[in-house]
Amino acid sequence: MTDNKIPYKIYLEEQEMPKAWYNLRADMINKPAPLLNPETMQPMTAEELGQVFCDELVAQELDETNPYIEIPEEIRDFYKMYRPSPLVRAYCLEEKLQTPAKIYYKFEGNNTSGSHKLNSAIAQAYYAKKQGLKGVTTETGAGQWGTALSMACSYFGLDCKVFMVKVSYEQKPFRREVMRTYGAYVTPSPSMETEVGKKILMEHPGTTGSLGCAISEAVETAGKLDGYRYVLGSVLNQVLLHQTIIGLETKAALDKYNIKPDMIIGCAGGGSNLGGLIAPFAGEKIRGEADYQLIAVEPESCPSLTRGKYAYDYCDTGKVCPLSKMYTLGSGFIPASSHAGGLRYHGMSSVVSQLYADGLMEARTVKQTEVFKAAQEFARVEGILPAPESSHAIKVAIDEAMKCKETGEEKTIVFGLTGTGYFDLYAYQKFNDGVMEDFCPSDEDIAASLAKLPVIE
Amino acid sequence: MTDNKIPYKIYLEEQEMPKAWYNLRADMINKPAPLLNPETMQPMTAEELGQVFCDELVAQELDETNPYIEIPEEIRDFYKMYRPSPLVRAYCLEEKLQTPAKIYYKFEGNNTSGSHKLNSAIAQAYYAKKQGLKGVTTETGAGQWGTALSMACSYFGLDCKVFMVKVSYEQKPFRREVMRTYGAYVTPSPSMETEVGKKILMEHPGTTGSLGCAISEAVETAGKLDGYRYVLGSVLNQVLLHQTIIGLETKAALDKYNIKPDMIIGCAGGGSNLGGLIAPFAGEKIRGEADYQLIAVEPESCPSLTRGKYAYDYCDTGKVCPLSKMYTLGSGFIPASSHAGGLRYHGMSSVVSQLYADGLMEARTVKQTEVFKAAQEFARVEGILPAPESSHAIKVAIDEAMKCKETGEEKTIVFGLTGTGYFDLYAYQKFNDGVMEDFCPSDEDIAASLAKLPVIE
Repeated sequence: MTDNKIPYKIYLEEQEMPKAWYNLRADMINKPAPLLNPETMQPMTAEELGQVFCDELVAQELDETNPYIEIPEEIRDFYKMYRPSPLVRAYCLEEKLQTPAKIYYKFEGNNTSGSHKLNSAIAQAYYAKKQGLKGVTTETGAGQWGTALSMACSYFGLDCKVFMVKVSYEQKPFRREVMRTYGAYVTPSPSMETEVGKKILMEHPGTTGSLGCAISEAVETAGKLDGYRYVLGSVLNQVLLHQTIIGLETKAALDKYNIKPDMIIGCAGGGSNLGGLIAPFAGEKIRGEADYQLIAVEPESCPSLTRGKYAYDYCDTGKVCPLSKMYTLGSGFIPASSHAGGLRYHGMSSVVSQLYADGLMEARTVKQTEVFKAAQEFARVEGILPAPESSHAIKVAIDEAMKCKETGEEKTIVFGLTGTGYFDLYAYQKFNDGVMEDFCPSDEDIAASLAKLPVIE
Repeated sequence: MTDNKIPYKIYLEEQEMPKAWYNLRADMINKPAPLLNPETMQPMTAEELGQVFCDELVAQELDETNPYIEIPEEIRDFYKMYRPSPLVRAYCLEEKLQTPAKIYYKFEGNNTSGSHKLNSAIAQAYYAKKQGLKGVTTETGAGQWGTALSMACSYFGLDCKVFMVKVSYEQKPFRREVMRTYGAYVTPSPSMETEVGKKILMEHPGTTGSLGCAISEAVETAGKLDGYRYVLGSVLNQVLLHQTIIGLETKAALDKYNIKPDMIIGCAGGGSNLGGLIAPFAGEKIRGEADYQLIAVEPESCPSLTRGKYAYDYCDTGKVCPLSKMYTLGSGFIPASSHAGGLRYHGMSSVVSQLYADGLMEARTVKQTEVFKAAQEFARVEGILPAPESSHAIKVAIDEAMKCKETGEEKTIVFGLTGTGYFDLYAYQKFNDGVMEDFCPSDEDIAASLAKLPVIE
């Protein structure tokens, strides 16, 4: 049943693990546009960014020249606890599909946070600790980022304050308890602990919160407390940089067996997983050393790349954070209820956006019900229960494998399996019960949202 | 921070993985006592067992002579999807405890079922398929076994009917949904689908069910349906045999780095994980080749080894299954509500019982609140969120490491980390909120239960 030489799981030895992150921006011909200060509409300076983020992370955020940035030993030590993550040959899925395609997935769910988010959380916590900070603040929606950050802070003995969107706080009590078990202080947002929270609660007493509001509360809290900074789990250059550990390991594992992939597929919300997975491959493509088909998969309900506009926009609904040039549906766009909470973001990382604008990457949308169908099919043969977010990539990988079946092509498909679905079983239940719906925003809704984009220069 | 030569995680290469299970009974001087037919009180024959279990599993159940039983290639192929499981050096825990002890854990939570149960589930499903059966029935309480079996049946295309204790079915809906996602048919027990279920519902309309009742329903259903057999996730010799994959991999990984453990620690409910983990070490001990301290850890609330009696008893509350000679608290013993559902069993595997009776193994009890304290401490430094069951072993491993700190001894401690706690967060919440209680049965309660043991000969 198995290829003679390729094991089910390709693991790297400790000494084969990457010692530096790869900074794709150094190789990009068109650099991603800089963040803008929302007050002056001028590029954010290092000093301005330093009021919100840790110093070393600011340096990483702005670095467009160094192709490799060393991973500090303390972070590498932590990575060793759950990395290298396996690159799995999906032999069982191939057999089920009866496809000549060879399918591989890089599985990032092998840690308690259950997703790739830990790769950046540990880096951000490390730099905060190194700078002598007492703690960090953040927001969480679906809960994966908050979980990862609470683990990372626990490891370095940092205080961790998480503002969790109230509806998630109440509907996902187990996510909350994981964070508390790792010592995080979790507050339902909006709360009475911040000015912005009080204001919102006064105006909308029954509100169940939003990510935009939680961001504002986290930023306000970091600014008020001595020795605290705000941290973010996606979108930013620094986050994509840390996530290149995924792509670097994938590339090293493939190289170990002389495997050359034809396409790399990743789900795309803010772009952290996708950007990290494809970075080394995009680099080779830009440098003209190899060619790969790079595919971003987004939910039909939140199609920022495929139906959004490439323009400067606010990163948060509250408009307190810097502006970023990106594919966006407008910061006021409210994605319809979707079970892939991690993909419900109106914008996209500026690095991923620039790659897409330059034609180095393509993008597709998929329907929620088809995603869960693919998730179930995958789970039943490969054993892993995938997160809804990750299942977007599974869906397109299966589609591509089925095309190969028709054409007889033996393409090599690699996709990112970002995490596990243990905390998404309410969504699986809806699917199992046959009551899951699909959501597709109308052209009018998107146009109305895009009409409100800020006008820059 | 790390030993120069020992990596965080010791993985075996595919070719280093065990190709046979180890049948400890072949090396035991005092063999475990045979199962008795509840009607005749005579040893169960192969023919009698074959009415309930698959033929090859019956052969394994009765085999006391062959020290190694080959693992069929199809099962080894499946094992490769999630095995070898890592043997992890707990460097971070050691540093946190400031102990000279070297701590290792064998982590069995690296698969969707979230526990070691899959090791036997896949074997039992394979033999059922090979025998041409249509499906299997089983019961599940905490849900780990039912989850593992539904995955295994999905893989081999077998029908899987799970009777889930009604209180778990309602309080653990996500466990239920995982099983459904893998295609299992899950029925809350007692149900109207069986005679025994109807009878119980008539007599006790509001009952929330029990494991004993669910076993009876599963056995009745297997007997009624053409091409079905009943399968069980612990206690039986066949299950312990399959679980020796844990101990064999552990031994191979230790041998690879010339590490000789001083003690092996495992949690003990029905004995499947413990029996599998310690088997190769117990074998060496029996054959006089090496000496190890082997420690079973049970909850204070259900102390079958430490406070039970070594005697023949029924394996189920309904008294429909064969009798087994084991350490038991009496089949009518109702353990107090405990969050380690997998350890709430009145008896113990006959192999483990015989090892204990022969002084080859020791046993300890631990309090629930101390177990969760150890679990939290472990999670915060090692990253993995442990199942409550597994955390019993963590607690004793930490105790032993702290003893080493006092004496300065550099002992090597190995313990089994059987699974993850993603579906146990209600218990963690109780602990986080400081409202978790301890339960210790009184001498009178245990004596009263033991007074009702069946009298054999």
